[in-house]
Amino acid sequence: MKVLVIGGTGTIGQAVVRELSGDGEVICAGRSGGDVRVDITSPDSIRELLQKTGTVDAIVSCAGQAAFAPTDQLTEEQMELSVRSKLLGQVNLVRFGAPHVADGGSITLSSGLLAHQPARGSAAISMVNAGVEAFAKAAALDLPRGIRVNVVSPPWVAETLTAMGRDPAKGLPAAQVARAYAECVRGTRTGEVLDARDFAHP
Amino acid sequence: MKVLVIGGTGTIGQAVVRELSGDGEVICAGRSGGDVRVDITSPDSIRELLQKTGTVDAIVSCAGQAAFAPTDQLTEEQMELSVRSKLLGQVNLVRFGAPHVADGGSITLSSGLLAHQPARGSAAISMVNAGVEAFAKAAALDLPRGIRVNVVSPPWVAETLTAMGRDPAKGLPAAQVARAYAECVRGTRTGEVLDARDFAHP
Repeated sequence: MKVLVIGGTGTIGQAVVRELSGDGEVICAGRSGGDVRVDITSPDSIRELLQKTGTVDAIVSCAGQAAFAPTDQLTEEQMELSVRSKLLGQVNLVRFGAPHVADGGSITLSSGLLAHQPARGSAAISMVNAGVEAFAKAAALDLPRGIRVNVVSPPWVAETLTAMGRDPAKGLPAAQVARAYAECVRGTRTGEVLDARDFAHP
Repeated sequence: MKVLVIGGTGTIGQAVVRELSGDGEVICAGRSGGDVRVDITSPDSIRELLQKTGTVDAIVSCAGQAAFAPTDQLTEEQMELSVRSKLLGQVNLVRFGAPHVADGGSITLSSGLLAHQPARGSAAISMVNAGVEAFAKAAALDLPRGIRVNVVSPPWVAETLTAMGRDPAKGLPAAQVARAYAECVRGTRTGEVLDARDFAHP
């Protein structure tokens, strides 16, 4: 199996690369590191990446930025970044990536709990997370050759909480979050949004 | 009460204008008709509209376009229109409109059933509808002065089905769809997505 992990240098992405590395070849793509570079806010950069990597069995996205700010303080730059990166960046991985995925292969995107559990300051993030989930569920009905599309919704990640000086026990270790992504790659699901907590086991 | 209805010249918008006209002053804004003109894909056009209309008690959006096409046939133009119009156009009505809404007033946006019931070809529409809903639910937690934010999710509209040569009995008449918008304007709800079918009565 050949898997392309986009955002593979991030906290969750590294764990996904580790989890899948026993399954075959894993290509790690990152904004500033990894085996190959990609800027998912740029459709051209995504197309170049896909030309380089050729046909793969799975594309996994652990990439995408979105802004956290109160609705009345969100700037145009923050809205554009959120839409261009975590929303359309990931959507374009499906649109441009599908022709490069082998028959019966899969594309897995990332959302987050704020899609359905809004909080103060989460308007932009909630919007992009919910948009990613809805796009993926519909795209799963469209794509040819048995190509599957799913989304993993990660909770707070323990390593991220530690880096923020907060209690890591309130999050899930990245290695456990990675299991939900592996389930999407190895299994037969399509059109689903997986809450990563449901696939973690101690 | 002073209400600004954006997209007030459309099938649902006209019914909303009629439904609310007994409550006070209704300003009808449309792309090519109505009392005032607005192009919601343009932030400047929205800002100009809001300058003209001054403080209102409610903003209702029955506006926004999104493309229907299979995932692998969606063009860049269709993606841009969907994002700039029904998603960010409506989101910007909240962002730019809130300062022009009176204390305890409301902003009501439109989504649609495809947000949660994806169909073949609905990827772009499902994405924008779900994004609008998630943004509104989070924005309702942020906005000051008791300003409320809700979304109405209309089903197929009978008049639209008739225009398409399909059976209008499979849809809800626009006048009944309008009741859900009126409930958002007159009531006390905030952060909710109303399925218009729940507010229709024969």
